Amino acid sequence: MYDYRAVTPEDLDLVCRHRHEMFKASGRGDDVLGPMTEAFRPWLAPRLASGAYFGWIAEDAGAPVGGLGMMVIDWPPHPSHPTQAARGYILNVFVEPAHRGAGVARALMDLAMAEGRRRGLRHMILHATAMGRPMYEKLGWTQTSEMAISL
Amino acid sequence: MYDYRAVTPEDLDLVCRHRHEMFKASGRGDDVLGPMTEAFRPWLAPRLASGAYFGWIAEDAGAPVGGLGMMVIDWPPHPSHPTQAARGYILNVFVEPAHRGAGVARALMDLAMAEGRRRGLRHMILHATAMGRPMYEKLGWTQTSEMAISL
Repeated sequence: MYDYRAVTPEDLDLVCRHRHEMFKASGRGDDVLGPMTEAFRPWLAPRLASGAYFGWIAEDAGAPVGGLGMMVIDWPPHPSHPTQAARGYILNVFVEPAHRGAGVARALMDLAMAEGRRRGLRHMILHATAMGRPMYEKLGWTQTSEMAISL
Repeated sequence: MYDYRAVTPEDLDLVCRHRHEMFKASGRGDDVLGPMTEAFRPWLAPRLASGAYFGWIAEDAGAPVGGLGMMVIDWPPHPSHPTQAARGYILNVFVEPAHRGAGVARALMDLAMAEGRRRGLRHMILHATAMGRPMYEKLGWTQTSEMAISL
C-alpha cells in the first residue's frame, strides 16, 4: 500500500517539517521549534547533499506521509563496537497522524536497520518519543544510560 | 589535597588506561576491552593532538589518580539547544579505587561543566555507569530517552 524511497536533497523542506512536527507531537512549543527549524535547515542542507544524512520517505499514492533520517556518527571505540569508531544514528522518525498504526514507522525502521547491517555497523542509537518507544522495544532496542543537562 | 591539570597529548596512554579501567569496573571483560583499547588509542591520538578531545587529570602529589575527557560533538539543532548545532560530551570519567569518595570525580565534573559554560554550550550529555549515576543526579543531570541496539 505504501511506497518507500530514499531521501534526496530535494526533501530539505520535508525533512525540516518532519523534525518540527515530530517534536511538536512530543509536546514542544513553536516558540522553541521555530528557531530550531530555522537553524536545522542550513545544518541539514549540506549533509543531505553529501549523503551524510540519508534516509527514506514513505509515500501514499505519491504523497509523502512519513520519513526517517539516518547518519553514521563518529564515536570512540566502545564495548558495544570495540573495533569500530562509529555508530548509526536514527532521527526524525515521523508519520502523519492519519497514517499511524499502519506499519509505516516499522517499515522505515526495517529499512534503517537493514542499511545499518549493509554498512557493517555494529551499534545503532536513537532517541525515542513516548509514542515511539513501544515499537522500538518490540524491535529489540533497549534504554541506554545516557544522561543530559542544560547549562 | 588534589591538583587538577589539563589533559595533554602526552596523556595518551593514561587516557586509554582510564577508559579501559572505567569499563572494567562496570563489568566488561578484557576479551572485549583489549580490542577496544587497541582501537581507541589511534582514534584518540589525533584528537588529543588537535584539542578535539580535552579534559582534566587529577593528581595526588604529582601522580595521576583520575581523569575526565570532553568533546564538543556535532549535533543537529534540537529543542534543548535550538540554535546550536553542537553539544558537549563527557566521557572516560575515572578515579582510582583508593581515591574514590574524596570528591575527585565531583571536582572533575565541576571543571567540565565550567568549561561547557565558557564555550557557550547549551546542552551536555554523558553515559553514566551505575557507580557514577547518583553523583550526576546530584549535579542536576537527568536520564534521556536514548535507546540502542547491536546489529
